[in-house]
Amino acid sequence: MKKIKGGVTSPKGFLAAAVSCGIKRRGKSDLALLYSETPCVCIATFTTNKVRSGSVVLSEKYLKNSAAQAVVVNSGNANCCVGKKEIEDALSITGATARKLGLKKQDVLICSTGIIGKPLPVNKIRVKIGALAEDLSRNGGTKFSKAIMTTDTVHKEAGAAVKIGSKTVRIGSAVKGAGMICPNMATMLAFFTTDAAIEKGALKLAFKEAVGESFNKITVDGDMSTNDSAIIFANGMARNATIKKGSAGYSKFLNALKSVAAELARKMILDGEGATRFVEITVKGARKEKGADMVARHVADSSLVKTMIAGGDPNWGRVAASAGSSGVDIKQNKLNIYFGKILVMKNGAATNVSKKTLAGIFKKKEIFITIDLGQGKASSEIWTCDLTKEYVMINAAYET
Amino acid sequence: MKKIKGGVTSPKGFLAAAVSCGIKRRGKSDLALLYSETPCVCIATFTTNKVRSGSVVLSEKYLKNSAAQAVVVNSGNANCCVGKKEIEDALSITGATARKLGLKKQDVLICSTGIIGKPLPVNKIRVKIGALAEDLSRNGGTKFSKAIMTTDTVHKEAGAAVKIGSKTVRIGSAVKGAGMICPNMATMLAFFTTDAAIEKGALKLAFKEAVGESFNKITVDGDMSTNDSAIIFANGMARNATIKKGSAGYSKFLNALKSVAAELARKMILDGEGATRFVEITVKGARKEKGADMVARHVADSSLVKTMIAGGDPNWGRVAASAGSSGVDIKQNKLNIYFGKILVMKNGAATNVSKKTLAGIFKKKEIFITIDLGQGKASSEIWTCDLTKEYVMINAAYET
Repeated sequence: MKKIKGGVTSPKGFLAAAVSCGIKRRGKSDLALLYSETPCVCIATFTTNKVRSGSVVLSEKYLKNSAAQAVVVNSGNANCCVGKKEIEDALSITGATARKLGLKKQDVLICSTGIIGKPLPVNKIRVKIGALAEDLSRNGGTKFSKAIMTTDTVHKEAGAAVKIGSKTVRIGSAVKGAGMICPNMATMLAFFTTDAAIEKGALKLAFKEAVGESFNKITVDGDMSTNDSAIIFANGMARNATIKKGSAGYSKFLNALKSVAAELARKMILDGEGATRFVEITVKGARKEKGADMVARHVADSSLVKTMIAGGDPNWGRVAASAGSSGVDIKQNKLNIYFGKILVMKNGAATNVSKKTLAGIFKKKEIFITIDLGQGKASSEIWTCDLTKEYVMINAAYET
Repeated sequence: MKKIKGGVTSPKGFLAAAVSCGIKRRGKSDLALLYSETPCVCIATFTTNKVRSGSVVLSEKYLKNSAAQAVVVNSGNANCCVGKKEIEDALSITGATARKLGLKKQDVLICSTGIIGKPLPVNKIRVKIGALAEDLSRNGGTKFSKAIMTTDTVHKEAGAAVKIGSKTVRIGSAVKGAGMICPNMATMLAFFTTDAAIEKGALKLAFKEAVGESFNKITVDGDMSTNDSAIIFANGMARNATIKKGSAGYSKFLNALKSVAAELARKMILDGEGATRFVEITVKGARKEKGADMVARHVADSSLVKTMIAGGDPNWGRVAASAGSSGVDIKQNKLNIYFGKILVMKNGAATNVSKKTLAGIFKKKEIFITIDLGQGKASSEIWTCDLTKEYVMINAAYET
């Protein structure tokens, strides 16, 4: 496997486009289209939030057959909490797009991200569908990745290529999302494309695993936004021997997919609203994985831990206090905590490492905190970012 | 019942004092003593954190008999996560204080608040015990309330007087704690005094209810700091007919106690680190109280909701999204949300109230958000504050 430049249009047969339809101000691009020249196997995971966008509801319905060929995306408006109009608007936009592209209506999905509770400006969008379709190109990936941004400060793309038999298979991706703060409700949209020929069941399994080891590491399942969606399109144009569960190519494909997803998950964290540092919280020595996960997420969500990291101050007491209040039955006298590789708490008490020694660790862009519960063999890793005053400023001013 | 000025020394027979022993910088007072001239019935609730201070461990042990006569408090150091020395140091300080006051050692409790993981400077403290005891006075309440502060920006006291039969019974209190952010780990210490004559069982019941309807509204049980403590001393010097469960005086006493506790809980929120607004989240129409509580706490802990309030921007979509991701099985089409008395979401969709109408609500110091789940009759209220960039600045710089 090797990393390749580019995003959703790197694999064969994918075209993308973006235009400005006037949802965002100052003529910023806010309407994007991703299209495959041939029908795709298509798998998606959607938000588990009980309050969800009509765009999510429609796309989920259209994907019951795991087939699609295009997705239209608007940013600036979530198409959520406006009632029946949500579905009508989603139908209107996907219908117009399908007609323009000559596709069946259920082959065009829709994703929306932005402000909640305001009707989509459907007419503004529809009037641009023609221009959007005409803009489709092999070079449109980056434009696509920029048009889906909301509070993101950078566009996020990644890609990989892997040999399956004699054929080169490519994977490309564009995501938006920033600010994985307790809990994450900045919508995450993730679009993956691949020219691999792959069976539906194999794609589903691989995508679930890749998402689980990347985006789900940074979001709490019960804590998703109203619009979170991750979608992968596989059009088979690489003409490789079809990848099946357990086939020789499966693990190569899976690893490439995981690598792309993990790279983008990290980019999302480092583009966290106002985030300056990537933080990995590892909990080991737990009796059960669920317990390890609870402690890790609890510490990762602690505002006091996150502000400590923003301040560059190695106050590990906050980590201990957060672990102790996670609801998991840990024992203080078995608790070891490491900042980087330095043991800062041993058996529940300070090791009295000098601040000087620790200061270096907190100056790095990536911070690793390990909590060893000393109770068993299960472990879990969670990724997060620091909490800075810039985060608050961005979020306090978001709507207006 | 009427409110009275003053704090822990307002009831008869209570004296307090404070000195500077050099834990805090610039000669700020950091060592405080509260003392009753006669033995007290004494009830306390301590943190449920699995990582806890030696001061908590010792005080809890000493209170097994529900009797005490004094508490010594240091700020600036939590006496936590330093190992066996915690208990030794707590014993040393309470022992010296008991000798100086002529009390049995187990009649002197200890509370600590401040940085975790550094040994208490016991010698600095012990050398000041004499001066502290000599400083005890009827007017020491306010000094006491100031010496226990850490990140607090104001000292917090309250009091009430109530007639029990022909006697006036007084209740006084001083608390420290600020910044009830997701989750609260800024230590809360609450000291209550009363000259009421009251049976142990009745005091326990009343204190539990008062704490439950005030401080526990603003903290998650599983999310307390390593040092949280709430203690009430009752010395009986008002010479009222002893209050018992169900006696005529009980409910009067209870109401006065609840009133004092609620007033101080509000003061703590408004002194939240960088907080500018008091926020009450009410969830009603839930099937069960536990569900109502889960939704209310989830919304109250949402950084996106809190920053919205800091920004004064009525973006109720964030409230809906947070409620939807609380883990409770709510139905979007039954969800009603009110900002103040204004219905902003009806049956899961925007009511399109103008921003102008809502702007006034967010300019107030107190913000009321009501979420009606439309599924049953259970309800819950949680108090919180907004999340401002000042919060982050204070917490990022706390240790150094």
